[in-house]
Amino acid sequence: MERRSFVKQAGLAGILAAGAAPAVVAQQSIRWRLASSFPNSLDTIFGAANVFAQRVKEATNGKFEITVHAGGELVPPFGVVDAVQQGTVECCHTAPYYFVGKDPTFALDCAVPFGMNARQTMAWMYQGNGLKLTREFYTQYNIVNFPMGNTGAQMGGWFRKPIHSLADMKGLKMRISSFAGKVMERLGVVPQNIPGGDIYPSLEKGTIDAAEWVGPYDDLKLGFYKVAKNYIYPGWWEGGPQLSLYVNTKAWNALPADYKAIVEVAAANANINMLAAYDAKNPNALRELVGRGVKLQPFPKDVMEAAYKATQDIFADLSRTNANWKKIYPDWVKFRNDDILWFRIAENEFDRFMFTRKLA
Amino acid sequence: MERRSFVKQAGLAGILAAGAAPAVVAQQSIRWRLASSFPNSLDTIFGAANVFAQRVKEATNGKFEITVHAGGELVPPFGVVDAVQQGTVECCHTAPYYFVGKDPTFALDCAVPFGMNARQTMAWMYQGNGLKLTREFYTQYNIVNFPMGNTGAQMGGWFRKPIHSLADMKGLKMRISSFAGKVMERLGVVPQNIPGGDIYPSLEKGTIDAAEWVGPYDDLKLGFYKVAKNYIYPGWWEGGPQLSLYVNTKAWNALPADYKAIVEVAAANANINMLAAYDAKNPNALRELVGRGVKLQPFPKDVMEAAYKATQDIFADLSRTNANWKKIYPDWVKFRNDDILWFRIAENEFDRFMFTRKLA
Repeated sequence: MERRSFVKQAGLAGILAAGAAPAVVAQQSIRWRLASSFPNSLDTIFGAANVFAQRVKEATNGKFEITVHAGGELVPPFGVVDAVQQGTVECCHTAPYYFVGKDPTFALDCAVPFGMNARQTMAWMYQGNGLKLTREFYTQYNIVNFPMGNTGAQMGGWFRKPIHSLADMKGLKMRISSFAGKVMERLGVVPQNIPGGDIYPSLEKGTIDAAEWVGPYDDLKLGFYKVAKNYIYPGWWEGGPQLSLYVNTKAWNALPADYKAIVEVAAANANINMLAAYDAKNPNALRELVGRGVKLQPFPKDVMEAAYKATQDIFADLSRTNANWKKIYPDWVKFRNDDILWFRIAENEFDRFMFTRKLA
Repeated sequence: MERRSFVKQAGLAGILAAGAAPAVVAQQSIRWRLASSFPNSLDTIFGAANVFAQRVKEATNGKFEITVHAGGELVPPFGVVDAVQQGTVECCHTAPYYFVGKDPTFALDCAVPFGMNARQTMAWMYQGNGLKLTREFYTQYNIVNFPMGNTGAQMGGWFRKPIHSLADMKGLKMRISSFAGKVMERLGVVPQNIPGGDIYPSLEKGTIDAAEWVGPYDDLKLGFYKVAKNYIYPGWWEGGPQLSLYVNTKAWNALPADYKAIVEVAAANANINMLAAYDAKNPNALRELVGRGVKLQPFPKDVMEAAYKATQDIFADLSRTNANWKKIYPDWVKFRNDDILWFRIAENEFDRFMFTRKLA
């Protein structure tokens, strides 16, 4: 309401009364449903949504309550974008690169092969143009996005046989996510799309020869080490994959300003908290895996080089053919390149020296 | 109040009424003053307190207002701990290692030589025992602490002459922070304690031979490159220094639960935001410095090794003589060591490969 029409309707007495004793505004009661793409057995990755919802509730005296639903409970794990777009649920928590079938541009909000590490991703999102550019892209889906979780650099996965060179990759049937799968295809790998719960039996039976999942903490739980001893790294297709909170635009616009601010900071808190959880829990899990006979091995150099080259070709194709990709990629790649130059200096030299220490 | 006694006092009618129309609770109006240790010219490091205060204000509809004061405005930059302890101000934003004169244990909440990088520090604080242990320590100072900002690995600083070996360090007069100064002394350096604003003239006149400050973005502003061309890295004494928000215990306890939650998430948001700011702004500043003739150089290996050894000796001394240090250090060092083992694998292999790319 404009001030002029307010004066007209309320009269001077009304205005004075409002000025004299500021109105007690009740905090609005709001309930949202959050659909996660993850099973609740993954305490770190699924847990980030709980951390978020819990903090929002505490920060609003319980007035803004977000119930968190595991993948499949309300909608299928990969149905969450449609559900948010249509307003079936107010929000979801997912890994954007699951939706490269809709548009490969989704992956720039998550991870692409040879992309950014976790810190670089956060810097691009929060202090570069990342949040601005991805938000423009998501308007097509009625989505407002918030970075909410990162696993750090993932492992390359579990291989039944060691990989000595690029030749060993040819013909391998590997469970791997879709963007990376396209790169793997160019190396002669036969990528397979298999839900998390079915990976173990497939690997055990030899239906597949290799599978990637996340990293030591999550992988240990699923027991892959029992049926494939070679744990190869790094997951060059996800150097710092970011999860997102997607909020339906209409639901977002209906929030009062204070709740909007609370959602933003609670999502940032969950973002850093999930990365911290992985950084805190992976070391012990890795030690346990090695204790159980797992063989750690970096990818051979020729595999890395071939994968890098194939990735550049795919990026070039997308820049020619996909208008959404083209709007974001140049900014993304410049930021990545600049940041890598800087990380080579103080950050890398510090880390590298610490890696040479004999630490009990 | 127990439900039983509530029923007794209010009667059934009261309960029904309460249920029918929930009481409208006004949000409490609170004003705090935050004393920063930093000048407001440092937009990243000083700016983190503004980001924090702004978010708290937005999240409470302007009801909880924290005014941010630059170093010296209310209390001297290094007087902020006393001010919070005595309740002169409700909170401050500072680098805990400024207070190693009170107790070297402060530095474990910030940075010690050859400590953790930024991600490792966050993991220890949020998902290890870091927050718990440092909070126990700070009860002696009437302080409740919150991680709030990180610069990432800093540069080693500006040297008038290149450093070819440990011998070149002997006798150097260097402006350096205090914990690191103790290590430098053991290498034959003469550490100097000089406020930020006086470094440039001292370096220009040759009163000092070297000075460390932060990293490219902040250092460029102060113009050190004009009077010392050798920019040496890494700052092995601050691989990921963390700033803290210190809140006076009484002021903290007086906050309603929702404001407490808001302070926590707003501090975490400012924490990640400041690191993102440095990661986003340092690359261009570094490029500009190199364009102006700055010579980048890593510390020679014998300097790094001697500094590492001297640091271990100091840690051992503190573990023998300082009860506060002894309560935290074993947990801190185990976490650091475990995390370094894990970071060597996927994280490092990913970064290292990206460092080998020719990026335009």
